Amino acid sequence: GFVHVKNPHLDSMEEDVLYHLDLGTKTHNLPAMFGDIKFVCVGGSPNRMRAFAQFMQRELGLAGEELRDVCAGSDRYAMYRAGPVLSISHGMGIPSISIMLHELIKLLHHAKCRDVTIIRIGTSGGLGIEAGSVVITDVAVDSSFQPRFEQVVLDDVVVRSTELDKDLAEELLTCSREIADFPTLMGHTMCTYDFYEGQGRLDGALCSFSSEKKLEYLRRAYAAGVRNIEMESTAFAALCGLCGLKGESCQFYLL
Amino acid sequence: GFVHVKNPHLDSMEEDVLYHLDLGTKTHNLPAMFGDIKFVCVGGSPNRMRAFAQFMQRELGLAGEELRDVCAGSDRYAMYRAGPVLSISHGMGIPSISIMLHELIKLLHHAKCRDVTIIRIGTSGGLGIEAGSVVITDVAVDSSFQPRFEQVVLDDVVVRSTELDKDLAEELLTCSREIADFPTLMGHTMCTYDFYEGQGRLDGALCSFSSEKKLEYLRRAYAAGVRNIEMESTAFAALCGLCGLKGESCQFYLL
Repeated sequence: GFVHVKNPHLDSMEEDVLYHLDLGTKTHNLPAMFGDIKFVCVGGSPNRMRAFAQFMQRELGLAGEELRDVCAGSDRYAMYRAGPVLSISHGMGIPSISIMLHELIKLLHHAKCRDVTIIRIGTSGGLGIEAGSVVITDVAVDSSFQPRFEQVVLDDVVVRSTELDKDLAEELLTCSREIADFPTLMGHTMCTYDFYEGQGRLDGALCSFSSEKKLEYLRRAYAAGVRNIEMESTAFAALCGLCGLKGESCQFYLL
Repeated sequence: GFVHVKNPHLDSMEEDVLYHLDLGTKTHNLPAMFGDIKFVCVGGSPNRMRAFAQFMQRELGLAGEELRDVCAGSDRYAMYRAGPVLSISHGMGIPSISIMLHELIKLLHHAKCRDVTIIRIGTSGGLGIEAGSVVITDVAVDSSFQPRFEQVVLDDVVVRSTELDKDLAEELLTCSREIADFPTLMGHTMCTYDFYEGQGRLDGALCSFSSEKKLEYLRRAYAAGVRNIEMESTAFAALCGLCGLKGESCQFYLL
């Protein structure tokens, strides 16, 4: 149940500085600080992840406990903990979430955490679904609707799987049904590198396509099973999958 | 000297909400707020862009004037102004800077700004140069050392030029020579989507290449003219170029 790092070089390093989190193996006692973490929730916005940590404190009967940004020395990400739950912001887009996940995975590894579940609780655009719905991702797909994350490693293109944890997805769907007026569905989540031109928006500084071409693309996406569009899920799924983190991505369709 | 938007749909929109900046054409008088802006400086970190605005205030004799985050209603980006200078954070990576630039370009367009110069003042890794050097980018290249920004628009791949303003680059280099102990050079800047595996780092959660393979790649990059590596320059160059913004990217090599 340990988190795997897949990097033979790490063993020979005297110190591991998790630069963007403002943490490190020599400066912090990571097992003492994080060894009992069982859940990690991540989302783009630092304010929202702080609010989520406060919510978790109330749910866990920890309201009133001090809530401080563990990464206060860096303004790249914000991190809060509430009992066994870490709440971390990741900014917007694949490059930003990737940096955070590399350092988080090493953090959980150094801290000797076991059986950690990670859930992305982000926002997204919806596709043919009711605004205010939550989409639980069964598989993250790229802009060609393929379940893959193409990544450049040095200058080679490596293709990675974007499967998420099916049992966790089902469990989350079951939880959602126990709450009244909480429209939730399972579907494919499309992940793009661009918010405006990449997601068919007509209101960016640049737009070279017609409203018809946009609709034709989104219709094809819907037919391929896509129910929402965001900017982090393929990298999230790929990194969690490779490092043995039980992961799921759920996004709220914010109109 | 106006900033161009290249989107025929914008003219027919009643309101333009610059969502991630928490600004809009109906809620804010953009010409009154921003019409006199002549310089925009952008960088990844919100704290650093606040510090830069304070520095500009002192340089312009405006020290003591209130400095407030114009985008305080959103935690996606931070924006400060000091006289005719806007200082804005863009987060990390191409997707994050792209969202900001789309909305900034529309902001400058709506505000009827003229002759605006935009400079990215970011950090980067250096390649065969002294730590603490500043690299002024002559051309931004991708991970194959090509001067291009490949972007997915709907599901088509569009290739965009990444040329920056040569005169501005020369002017900045001249300025740097007037300052003692300010090592500055001009060179190609490589822009990657990934900080760890994409830039040859051996200390990510994943690393599948040897130290030799890393060095071989970085040597090829150096031979192709690359002097530093960061994560935003190709998108910055492409968007500025297309919208008639005189733009340059300078990065401090932070060891």
